[in-house]
Amino acid sequence: MSFKSTMDETPSGSGSQGIDSLGLQVMRTLDDLARFSEEEGALTRRYLTKEHTEAADFVMQMMRDAGMDARMDALGNVIGSAEGDSSSSPRLLIGSHIDTVRDAGRYDGALGIVLPIACLGFLHRQGIRLPYPVDVIAFGDEEGVRFQSTLIGSRAIAGDFDPALLDATDSDGIRLADALRAFGLDPDAFEKARYRAEDVAAYIEVHIEQGPVLEDEGLPVGVVTSIAGATRFQVKVVGQAGHAGTVPMRLRRDALVASAEAIASVERICTSIPSSVGTVGILHTLPGAVNVIPGTVEFSLDVRAESDASRHAALSEIDKAFGEIAERRGVSITKTMTHEGDACQCAPWLMHRLAQAVQAEGISVRELPSGAGHDAMAVARLTDVGMLFVRCLEGISHHPAESMSEADAQVASKVLLRFLESFDPRKTG
Amino acid sequence: MSFKSTMDETPSGSGSQGIDSLGLQVMRTLDDLARFSEEEGALTRRYLTKEHTEAADFVMQMMRDAGMDARMDALGNVIGSAEGDSSSSPRLLIGSHIDTVRDAGRYDGALGIVLPIACLGFLHRQGIRLPYPVDVIAFGDEEGVRFQSTLIGSRAIAGDFDPALLDATDSDGIRLADALRAFGLDPDAFEKARYRAEDVAAYIEVHIEQGPVLEDEGLPVGVVTSIAGATRFQVKVVGQAGHAGTVPMRLRRDALVASAEAIASVERICTSIPSSVGTVGILHTLPGAVNVIPGTVEFSLDVRAESDASRHAALSEIDKAFGEIAERRGVSITKTMTHEGDACQCAPWLMHRLAQAVQAEGISVRELPSGAGHDAMAVARLTDVGMLFVRCLEGISHHPAESMSEADAQVASKVLLRFLESFDPRKTG
Repeated sequence: MSFKSTMDETPSGSGSQGIDSLGLQVMRTLDDLARFSEEEGALTRRYLTKEHTEAADFVMQMMRDAGMDARMDALGNVIGSAEGDSSSSPRLLIGSHIDTVRDAGRYDGALGIVLPIACLGFLHRQGIRLPYPVDVIAFGDEEGVRFQSTLIGSRAIAGDFDPALLDATDSDGIRLADALRAFGLDPDAFEKARYRAEDVAAYIEVHIEQGPVLEDEGLPVGVVTSIAGATRFQVKVVGQAGHAGTVPMRLRRDALVASAEAIASVERICTSIPSSVGTVGILHTLPGAVNVIPGTVEFSLDVRAESDASRHAALSEIDKAFGEIAERRGVSITKTMTHEGDACQCAPWLMHRLAQAVQAEGISVRELPSGAGHDAMAVARLTDVGMLFVRCLEGISHHPAESMSEADAQVASKVLLRFLESFDPRKTG
Repeated sequence: MSFKSTMDETPSGSGSQGIDSLGLQVMRTLDDLARFSEEEGALTRRYLTKEHTEAADFVMQMMRDAGMDARMDALGNVIGSAEGDSSSSPRLLIGSHIDTVRDAGRYDGALGIVLPIACLGFLHRQGIRLPYPVDVIAFGDEEGVRFQSTLIGSRAIAGDFDPALLDATDSDGIRLADALRAFGLDPDAFEKARYRAEDVAAYIEVHIEQGPVLEDEGLPVGVVTSIAGATRFQVKVVGQAGHAGTVPMRLRRDALVASAEAIASVERICTSIPSSVGTVGILHTLPGAVNVIPGTVEFSLDVRAESDASRHAALSEIDKAFGEIAERRGVSITKTMTHEGDACQCAPWLMHRLAQAVQAEGISVRELPSGAGHDAMAVARLTDVGMLFVRCLEGISHHPAESMSEADAQVASKVLLRFLESFDPRKTG
């Protein structure tokens, strides 16, 4: 059977191997993958853990079952290669991440690994070979939960991995370099993970929306226009510790009350600047006792906006507010930037091809930005990127209640197959 | 040499055993005691740790060197007994606590153990026996750092220990009952730690002020009038976790921003109600990741005031504010009380005797309240209590910078000796 006829001529309802069962297959595989968790009764899968190994083995087996060669690169990314008819053609990369936040949902990241493998497996079973080679990549670290630095996997393949990160430590004081070694990898070989730009045609990522737009508009999928830029800081507030009973309110330099005011200012500023969001996700008090005024507080700060101008405006307002709070309360507030990524534009030619594939499935094309960061941001340093969003329940993600439907997995699979069918690695305009 | 003549007739500068070297001896012993710490380079000594054992052994040796019998009771309190001339007289109790907060100073608690033992040792070396028996008690737990419940030691001797506490767990999940067993004690024998009221004449505690009043007024010591009442809560704020990039500000139910507003309201309310103080010392965010909106926040709340009416007024205002924040933000805020102690009045007859002893040293008598809780609060359920405050540096306590002078230790020692000289256990008015 030729590729051209696949989409329209494959009979419906052709059992567990048929095109109409792709959605079911994707959902079941996502359930299976969610079993690899560090925590009983919750899904937590951090970079370079035992559960990462187990999930990677599972994904490599899926890749091989789909007729692909599977390997792990120097940073722990899993790569499955489907060779194409033309050995001289540059590769299409398709990927997303295999790590999760703590107590996560099962679709964020994993969908963008499982769904393309299911599609390529379908083509393999139909005896169809694409005219160009495809690599499906399961990135080892996107969320950054373990080493507090995101996109390690996708930066490495884009040749943008900072070797200084090898000295970053997790909460147990384990260095990234040592965690890689314990995982059976060679940290000094990180350069080998890099793709050469001339070998790559484009990068596509399928991901749940993690927001409420598609659900509101009754659409199963949407085409991403850009990914919001983000800046992250570690903020340290230093006041004066003291006895909770003996220091009168007016003489206190309480680092936590100052931090509370700072957190409220982030909310106020990001509410007033359109499309910007600001979040404090982690906060620690020191010394941390019931009867001691906190002398030091450390918290994370994450600021994002669709446009870099909005993000810079929010950051500048936050700086002003923090400075005013520090001055008035006699505390110091210092910010250390831990991550900065500018907004990332998706390539118009890829958006166009994705839109055509959506349209071919009889669905109106909704273009929308992404408020969340994705591996595509890092890969954009290497090649043109495009993203397909899939509707999720109530915009919930990073939470066990994260959910999407089998019907939408089915639609997204068919859209990706249509995209693969029409994709021409030599036509980038 | 008779007791009556000790204070006025002992020659000055009589070497390391003389009355004028008591301050030096107290300061050196406090330095020695500070070596028993769980942390290198910082003083942390929690209840029933190895370092508690080491400090208890050290104190028992001091007691024996001072001519006292030393023993440990069922809750780990160390008790040194100096018998009096009259075997029928009720006992004077003098004590304070041997445990510390994290990264503590070396005077809070320890001063009230070391100084009385030094005074009794001085009398012992002079061959002087008091007309009444004295027990010096080093309470095992006052700060409550390990099991989040304060005054375990002093409650036990007052017959006010709640056996339900035996099931309280520390941060490693170890139950108090098991920690007592591991310490070589029998948790079921807690009743044996209790004193009978008819055997006790009074309780006296010497403690650093932990506030700035005496330093401001240039006075080495002061007489405490009352100890502020305190209420403590564990507060839980539940909102909705979500992705830090995709949930617009206006749709968030961020448990940390709600908590920040709650913390600001505690500051506002306690600043407006005279003599009240409110402190949030510990705060945790859940799930606790850089890129996740906190769905749940837990924090401690400690509210104190000199009068119970002021404290109740503050608590009622805080309830109102928390309710309004929860309602407006669509989060739940629940408070669980973990400790409540009413304000405690010092006995006028003991204040009078302490004031006379201060005056006899040529120092103006300053009466002042205590904003901090002390073992005396728990012992007040058993007997009349009095407290002598000693000036400390800049009101700092619960911090390595906590400090006091050798000269003040000397003055306080002589005041305590004067008090012991004049104390009559049968005259309580």
